[in-house]
Amino acid sequence: MRPVAVAAAGKTPFGAFAGRDLRSLAVEAGDKCLKNGYVSPSQVEAFYLGNFAGPSFTGQNHLAPYISNALGIRDVPATRFEAACASGGSAFFHAFSAVAAGIYDCVLVLGVEKMTSQTTARVTEILASAGDCSGEMKAGSTFPSLFAMIARRHMYQYGTTREDLAAVAVKNHANGALNPGAHMRKVITLADALNARPVAEPLGLYDCSLISDGAAAVVLMPADRARDFTDKPVRILGVAQASDFVALDQKPDITTFPAVRRASEKAYEMAGVGPNDIQFAEVHDCFTIAEIVAIEDLGFVEKGCGGPYETSGATARAGEKPINASGGLKAKGHPVGATGVAQICDLVAQIRCEAGDMQLKRNSLGLAQNLGGSGASCVVSILGNV
Amino acid sequence: MRPVAVAAAGKTPFGAFAGRDLRSLAVEAGDKCLKNGYVSPSQVEAFYLGNFAGPSFTGQNHLAPYISNALGIRDVPATRFEAACASGGSAFFHAFSAVAAGIYDCVLVLGVEKMTSQTTARVTEILASAGDCSGEMKAGSTFPSLFAMIARRHMYQYGTTREDLAAVAVKNHANGALNPGAHMRKVITLADALNARPVAEPLGLYDCSLISDGAAAVVLMPADRARDFTDKPVRILGVAQASDFVALDQKPDITTFPAVRRASEKAYEMAGVGPNDIQFAEVHDCFTIAEIVAIEDLGFVEKGCGGPYETSGATARAGEKPINASGGLKAKGHPVGATGVAQICDLVAQIRCEAGDMQLKRNSLGLAQNLGGSGASCVVSILGNV
Repeated sequence: MRPVAVAAAGKTPFGAFAGRDLRSLAVEAGDKCLKNGYVSPSQVEAFYLGNFAGPSFTGQNHLAPYISNALGIRDVPATRFEAACASGGSAFFHAFSAVAAGIYDCVLVLGVEKMTSQTTARVTEILASAGDCSGEMKAGSTFPSLFAMIARRHMYQYGTTREDLAAVAVKNHANGALNPGAHMRKVITLADALNARPVAEPLGLYDCSLISDGAAAVVLMPADRARDFTDKPVRILGVAQASDFVALDQKPDITTFPAVRRASEKAYEMAGVGPNDIQFAEVHDCFTIAEIVAIEDLGFVEKGCGGPYETSGATARAGEKPINASGGLKAKGHPVGATGVAQICDLVAQIRCEAGDMQLKRNSLGLAQNLGGSGASCVVSILGNV
Repeated sequence: MRPVAVAAAGKTPFGAFAGRDLRSLAVEAGDKCLKNGYVSPSQVEAFYLGNFAGPSFTGQNHLAPYISNALGIRDVPATRFEAACASGGSAFFHAFSAVAAGIYDCVLVLGVEKMTSQTTARVTEILASAGDCSGEMKAGSTFPSLFAMIARRHMYQYGTTREDLAAVAVKNHANGALNPGAHMRKVITLADALNARPVAEPLGLYDCSLISDGAAAVVLMPADRARDFTDKPVRILGVAQASDFVALDQKPDITTFPAVRRASEKAYEMAGVGPNDIQFAEVHDCFTIAEIVAIEDLGFVEKGCGGPYETSGATARAGEKPINASGGLKAKGHPVGATGVAQICDLVAQIRCEAGDMQLKRNSLGLAQNLGGSGASCVVSILGNV
């Protein structure tokens, strides 16, 4: 395994873009990324696309060559990677593995999703297809209700409160307000979060992430080669993907996701660091409870202590462990296939000191956690300038 | 790069199985494969799933962990690879690359598609999503019509005849009749093929492959380790994936697929062999014209000579270069995501001398060619017992 670095990054703003199609978003992010690293399309040796449900949202399948050829990338392997909401992370994981193992010297990883369109009315149904359609979904569950059950159980087992959940929403909205590329730049109060209309109790409107369009891209290279393309290569210190049961009812304890634990253990081991070394993180807050479960499963706090930790302010920009300084899926937005790659772009911007108003002071070692379904897929990545 | 072998293989019959769902087919193939190699699920280090349009055909997305957990495979990366009709081949290519590079010592590659169901009426539309929906498909094209245009142009440029196309159908149906796992075991005559009702002229009913359900799986290991699991490991000598424009109207010449040429050149180079060394092949005969174009682009014959070569009998079981001894997509069936992996299973059965009535005499070096769309993706694999 040779050292690998992010040589370039680029993304579109996230939002609801009525006039944009999937390919134009992907091409914008890909072009920005290649230009950011002075990489020509002909130098790209493989194209790794993260996309969850392009065919369902837009009707277009076979998206990898559809996008790569529009970017001027010819001949090379162009493949779509799907692992539900962890599709972007999975494309990144496989690309990292291939570069680390010496298969390629220059790979473009791109994540994209176009969720707002004539199929918007079907978004909840399309997202639900990442769960167990023959079981839990047939019984009427959708992701808001599955995560509502997780929240209820977390409250029951650990005393987590509605206020703890709301604290996550308030923080991520405050962070998103500093992000010019965020879907929703709107500061909210604790009262706003607590009084929002219910979606699936105890989750209200501000406990749920957004339905967004967007794309993000990074170029991966062996670390020594990356220095020829940028003064600020960012080292990928560890990446791991893990899996678990798709159906929530098969899990012995729904307040913890073994795939997150497993992926983070492997990523920490690869990076030679532990959870206490991580200075900041982008985690998969598809719902506020998911951020609480994530920071526990990642080992940032003991199981059950995530709620009070969020409420204490420790995860705010000025706290000891800033979480989702970008605004997270909650405020930045959640174009599903783009999310995992966008998290990497956010880490890169922080580590390069290019995060503008979002810039954190302790920025040399960051972690990204990208979740698929109700925990059946997870990718954890650790990046640093060490 | 270390030597890699197929340690085990298994597949379901192909057909229209009204009572079977996608997961049960996948689990049957995966179980058979693991048992074939005495591999326990806990030994599998990564799960590579090839699937084109499971979400569209069945409503279920996030299929990789959905299947892997049902097979008893836990924790490890479980990812779906999509490259249209080359999805299975793409999963195989990426898995091979990972084992060759030393990332994993034991990988399960599985391809599956469930095409017959309540969505059968939408099959042509779902398949069309692998083409350019915003352009050619919007104008009314579907794959039969795209390949009909290719056939017409091939006839115009090279003098290929309806009889040449029919010869492919007659041969592959004759071969499929010897395959107990084939979807259609029906011998047809040249007159049957020529007089069949038109689908998209010049293509008739017998020029088109089948709409099938099915699954296929292989276990990949480093070659030296494979010997601990089987007396008959089959070496993977070369595999390559390449891409090209999705829309047919962007290609300068629609009678040749640059992605097939590129992938085969790389696979030949990796294997250290040339097209004349290949003793038999499974090629992607989604339409009869596709087999003719394939054997030309693979270098088995000069461009334009594929039609007469088929008519001469050279590609029959007893000919100098048997093509699609399994019956091909034409008669064996074409459950899209399974096809690329099933081709590998067919090569393995021949090389192991386990092909029963289909067994060929010259069986030590075989090639599989798996095509996506109208040539936008291609995977070429070369296997042997050398």
